[in-house]
Amino acid sequence: MNVNGKAYRTVWMDGGKVMLINQNLLPGTFTVVGMATHRDTAAALRDMIVRGAPAIGATGAFGLVQAVQAAAKARRMVDAAFLRAVDSGCELLRRTRPTAQNLFYALDRVRSVVRGGMTARTACDKARHEADCIADEDVAACRSIGIHGAALLKDGMTVLTHCNAGWLATVDWGTALAPLYTAHRAGKRIRVFADETRPRCQGARLTAWELAQEGIEVTVIADNAAGHFLRHGEIDLCIVGADRIAANGDVANKIGTYEKAVLATENGVPFYVAAPRSTFDPACPTGDDIPIEERSQDEVLYAEGFDARGRNARVMLAPRGATARNPAFDVTPAAYIAGIITEHGIVKAGPGTMSRGRKRRS
Amino acid sequence: MNVNGKAYRTVWMDGGKVMLINQNLLPGTFTVVGMATHRDTAAALRDMIVRGAPAIGATGAFGLVQAVQAAAKARRMVDAAFLRAVDSGCELLRRTRPTAQNLFYALDRVRSVVRGGMTARTACDKARHEADCIADEDVAACRSIGIHGAALLKDGMTVLTHCNAGWLATVDWGTALAPLYTAHRAGKRIRVFADETRPRCQGARLTAWELAQEGIEVTVIADNAAGHFLRHGEIDLCIVGADRIAANGDVANKIGTYEKAVLATENGVPFYVAAPRSTFDPACPTGDDIPIEERSQDEVLYAEGFDARGRNARVMLAPRGATARNPAFDVTPAAYIAGIITEHGIVKAGPGTMSRGRKRRS
Repeated sequence: MNVNGKAYRTVWMDGGKVMLINQNLLPGTFTVVGMATHRDTAAALRDMIVRGAPAIGATGAFGLVQAVQAAAKARRMVDAAFLRAVDSGCELLRRTRPTAQNLFYALDRVRSVVRGGMTARTACDKARHEADCIADEDVAACRSIGIHGAALLKDGMTVLTHCNAGWLATVDWGTALAPLYTAHRAGKRIRVFADETRPRCQGARLTAWELAQEGIEVTVIADNAAGHFLRHGEIDLCIVGADRIAANGDVANKIGTYEKAVLATENGVPFYVAAPRSTFDPACPTGDDIPIEERSQDEVLYAEGFDARGRNARVMLAPRGATARNPAFDVTPAAYIAGIITEHGIVKAGPGTMSRGRKRRS
Repeated sequence: MNVNGKAYRTVWMDGGKVMLINQNLLPGTFTVVGMATHRDTAAALRDMIVRGAPAIGATGAFGLVQAVQAAAKARRMVDAAFLRAVDSGCELLRRTRPTAQNLFYALDRVRSVVRGGMTARTACDKARHEADCIADEDVAACRSIGIHGAALLKDGMTVLTHCNAGWLATVDWGTALAPLYTAHRAGKRIRVFADETRPRCQGARLTAWELAQEGIEVTVIADNAAGHFLRHGEIDLCIVGADRIAANGDVANKIGTYEKAVLATENGVPFYVAAPRSTFDPACPTGDDIPIEERSQDEVLYAEGFDARGRNARVMLAPRGATARNPAFDVTPAAYIAGIITEHGIVKAGPGTMSRGRKRRS
């Protein structure tokens, strides 16, 4: 997608460095940062310099490439010590974010191509190739999600989205926003209501920014206002992303998704989830089996934004000494989801969602 | 209620001045400000130095007393010119906030006691007496709401509230929070989840502050998280305030109330509204007839809080040039409301709500 007219991905490798758009500084400042080691890349994941399940996956994959490259500096062959070093790097990366299925999926794929008895050089090449595939497959999947999802969008529609499941949350194109980009480029007029998405306000900060960069009309609303606009018929369709989809079709996504799904259903507005196959977790029977990350209470007690010069700044909202709870995700039961827009087509959420998603792939 | 151990009301008259706790500076700084004229008082209402439907009503009443006192400086008798001056002041005060029923109720009451042929002195005395009655009745009504509502609260319960319908929103005691104060003083352990209530964050700023002043355990949550906690059985009961209640029992209240009511209902958690009779509008058939104030988009595009020294400060959340919609209130249909806690007891929301509320009064 475009930033000031120039095309970017959210994450890529440049030599041994993992390059990332620093999403913590957006929309105040657009900066690309390079992570020199897998430890730096793990820190970037933890600090949410990069966020969004598919982007987290690709970043994890590139981070694991760095761990393989580091092991290859000390050894010429993949032996037990080499694998221990890689596994330790893999563990570090795995522990950065507990909810995003794409991270585990990507790490497992890159890890699986590194095997004892290979030369270190081969291990590096194979790991890098696998990570590149993951990134490229994500772009292709999102492109395909865009095409399938755009079929739902009619000229003049208003779409509600929550958090940021745009190209910044993936390697390119986005999940929830890919259908909007596709429809917009096809000449359909689409308006977007973006929930600001407290506590980290990825809707106000990132979704509003990336849609505006592509020339799509976007209106930011308080999370509290979505129900009001749904009830007044001002929203035709909802599309959100997903961090993990359980085998029964329950969806873990940014906190507040469940609220909006219930309200959309209550008002007869179709609520869609857009996600690639890498977000489905066959090992997870239901949404209640998905661990929900609880983040620092400071994210709720403060609001972080930027000052008049575009520098990050924060203000305290609650009284000194106040306490907060901060679940970062919630689970939306499959019953509230009209369909899941995947790269293989739109499938109904519910038992068998994933196998159906997979069947269409072949 | 107590501020640092000293008892306060939110609004009172001191000579010709209307005295207000400046709620825009809480919880960073506790300050009392005096409004010298009815024009200053109207500005204080518009700028939300005082907010909360019952507190708005009492402030409007005292503001109209100031308009009567000003007219009395120029004339010894209440003649047509005197009444024109009073009516013009009344109009100015009436236009400050379009949604709160209590404002119109209070202005009508004070205006009705000023009649042609009275001495100016009598008009002043009668207006002041009526305004004092409105304030005292509000305190008594809230006290009574506290007693009726406390019967719903069992030891160990966790209550969700939205926005601030505490003593800061009334003259004293509060509406939604009065039952909590009453139960707490009776020795029941009650925990509160306070929705932060974007965009103005009255939950994080005011509710968290006033509950903590009274020693009640309060946890601030993002508005997006209420659904998650309701679904997980962490909330036993919801109580919110109201800005206006239509004849059919529909309730206008702070934006987001409708969302939480739907989610509470969906999860089998009783959702109560607490409001005095002055919030009921018999002339308003349904919620759809209540005008909804749309406030400045800057309230959404920025977050206002305070800096490390307790001074007000704000940060921008959205990209430069972004647009927002900002409905300040929404309407919750009566069907989602388990009951309305009034000073006369708990009544079922729905057609006839108000007449039932009134019958119990006699």
